[in-house]
Amino acid sequence: MKSVAILGHGTVGSGVYEIIEQNNKYMLKTYDEFINVSHILVRNPENHKDIKSSLLTTDFDAILSSDCDIVIEAMGGIHPAYDYIRRSLEHRKHVITANKDLIAEHGSELLEIAYNYNVTLNYEAAVGGGIPVIKTIRESLSAHRLNSITGILNGTTNYILSKMHEENISYDEALKGAQEAGFAEMDPSADVLGFDAARKLSILTQLSTGKQLKVKDVLIEGITNLDDKDISTARKLGYKIKLISKLIRYEHCLHAFVKPAYVRSTSQLGLINNEYNTVVLDLGQIGQMTFSGKGAGKFPTGSAIYGDILDILLNDKHQTKKPLVPTKICHYAQGYNDWLVRLYSLNHPIDLEKVFKFFNQGNVQIEDFTDPHDLAFTIQGMSETNLIDSIKKLQNLNIISVSKYFMILE
Amino acid sequence: MKSVAILGHGTVGSGVYEIIEQNNKYMLKTYDEFINVSHILVRNPENHKDIKSSLLTTDFDAILSSDCDIVIEAMGGIHPAYDYIRRSLEHRKHVITANKDLIAEHGSELLEIAYNYNVTLNYEAAVGGGIPVIKTIRESLSAHRLNSITGILNGTTNYILSKMHEENISYDEALKGAQEAGFAEMDPSADVLGFDAARKLSILTQLSTGKQLKVKDVLIEGITNLDDKDISTARKLGYKIKLISKLIRYEHCLHAFVKPAYVRSTSQLGLINNEYNTVVLDLGQIGQMTFSGKGAGKFPTGSAIYGDILDILLNDKHQTKKPLVPTKICHYAQGYNDWLVRLYSLNHPIDLEKVFKFFNQGNVQIEDFTDPHDLAFTIQGMSETNLIDSIKKLQNLNIISVSKYFMILE
Repeated sequence: MKSVAILGHGTVGSGVYEIIEQNNKYMLKTYDEFINVSHILVRNPENHKDIKSSLLTTDFDAILSSDCDIVIEAMGGIHPAYDYIRRSLEHRKHVITANKDLIAEHGSELLEIAYNYNVTLNYEAAVGGGIPVIKTIRESLSAHRLNSITGILNGTTNYILSKMHEENISYDEALKGAQEAGFAEMDPSADVLGFDAARKLSILTQLSTGKQLKVKDVLIEGITNLDDKDISTARKLGYKIKLISKLIRYEHCLHAFVKPAYVRSTSQLGLINNEYNTVVLDLGQIGQMTFSGKGAGKFPTGSAIYGDILDILLNDKHQTKKPLVPTKICHYAQGYNDWLVRLYSLNHPIDLEKVFKFFNQGNVQIEDFTDPHDLAFTIQGMSETNLIDSIKKLQNLNIISVSKYFMILE
Repeated sequence: MKSVAILGHGTVGSGVYEIIEQNNKYMLKTYDEFINVSHILVRNPENHKDIKSSLLTTDFDAILSSDCDIVIEAMGGIHPAYDYIRRSLEHRKHVITANKDLIAEHGSELLEIAYNYNVTLNYEAAVGGGIPVIKTIRESLSAHRLNSITGILNGTTNYILSKMHEENISYDEALKGAQEAGFAEMDPSADVLGFDAARKLSILTQLSTGKQLKVKDVLIEGITNLDDKDISTARKLGYKIKLISKLIRYEHCLHAFVKPAYVRSTSQLGLINNEYNTVVLDLGQIGQMTFSGKGAGKFPTGSAIYGDILDILLNDKHQTKKPLVPTKICHYAQGYNDWLVRLYSLNHPIDLEKVFKFFNQGNVQIEDFTDPHDLAFTIQGMSETNLIDSIKKLQNLNIISVSKYFMILE
């Protein structure tokens, strides 16, 4: 029997509590084990009349001095969550959290504390609740070097992009629909600007490479600038735009980005729609490995946390990995890629001849030029630095005013 | 430090040995741990001059009486593997095996022995080496009831079917190509008749439901009877034929089959090609979860075994699940499904009017009737028992001679 304290009783906290209660019979039957919820930390016990009052407490120190074994942080935010986690670890209590903001920012430090106090810090639910990828990376894939991670790591943006493609609606309309359906927060910035995905990519990278990748090392571009023509061009080509999170491990550096990119509608990535997430690991000798599932929600997150409890319950040797090592970051994709480029000219029509002087014309295909101020074309086999150079020159010569470009992935 | 004995030094055994040696530096750095290979059991040491001779032994009892902690069975076959595993467990040694024949046949009994001796029997590699789905089911998904498993669980047949679709070649040609490419054995029966997939489905089911599903409880149909028209009809409809393994958990029984079925070419299942495998778990509240990767090969299998070693190394509490409980099996899919039906008449042309008397004509669509002796049609929303009844009546009335049918999955 292990005793568990849950900090917070919102969506995640109440989901975990429910799942623990539902599964104790199964736990006893299968593992001869039992999980006892000893405390639920809330701000105002009056608001939680559905819970036995003896469980509720407003006093975190009472939890620290109790003999509970595991603390589940389900409050969110950095403060006081950070402080509570740190002190729990220092009191030799295992900690489970789904708080990706916290893990992305303080994970390295908290893992070191857990390591020193010989307890476990588990955070499976911090990266795609419905995809148990962290445990897999930690235990099953240790034998192989990871070449790249490619993911759709944010359910909100994937839901919005799916609706833009399916229903032919604008970003604003799709966002409104997502908010009404409960798939986007009232303040959706962290999701739609790409920060949430970047935090998850940072966690996955640190875990699978042992190298430090801070959120600020990830090139981040959200989905707020996508317009109808981006979507219609993709559709015409048989592609979809997805917010892709990608880590590439080069010999001497890591390259990481979260950006909208083109993927074929009928590819594995193109088929991940709505609130579903996916992670594709490229593992050299053993090939690609793919995990997909719902990225978030009360039960996926609660279930991931429950898995983290079970992990602690069944495993007595709580060795957290050693502290992360700093690493070199490179800011552009190396080698050659295919791109979809959008060029705008505010003042005068675009002069194709002048534009294509800066690209290898053999590899160029015009995709949309119905508006002479707005050119969309694809280009094959160009390095990202060359692409950026060419675009900059076009801007300096005043041939175009604004530009954007997307990597074409598969 | 843990000591490991490897039984066998063929493809799997040598792969594991290589991976252990390659990763010890990483293990030390990351986990302060180290894996020492103490014995390699071979029949003839003369044939393994590349291995330090002090490691090689022909005497299994020497391994039993040594202080090695983990025995890795990489011999294959039932005898003497079964005996060696049983005796290792009884000597309180953890055992790892990738031997799916053995686990499907004796898994329940061996797990019980492991349980009684408080050691671990791990067999991740027995089900799709490149897909770490067993650990996921065991630890991460315990909180949720599984509704169904849908998988492409055999790489050989998937490779053959992929080539039949892509290159428009016959089953025999595709099999020959697969043998030449090393994706099919010289005697491919266990794969192409569906037994290998059925064994894996049995293991996955037992693990995720705790209920006993023997291989003989699985309805098995291989791919050897597929002809050009099956493939071309599928292509015309935008579908592919895949060897689908499926478990459905009804309220009072389990239904399990391995059969060729139609899946849309652009669906998640349709995109799993060549030697890749996939497992889709339907988990009710938390939705569908998908795992894909290479199903077999030296490194995927070796890597899965290495994951099993790590699992033992990092986890001290080796509680194997309790023994399996017997369950009721139902032999047909319940509810309504869509089907592709092929009817043949050897003696006289098929009389459509007579045929469709036995089906609800509104739901029928003729797909190919170029040969009046050979009719292919799809039918929507019919139960499997009704379908079989109708076909039997047609045969009894001598309206048709032979038939086959495929479930249309997605």
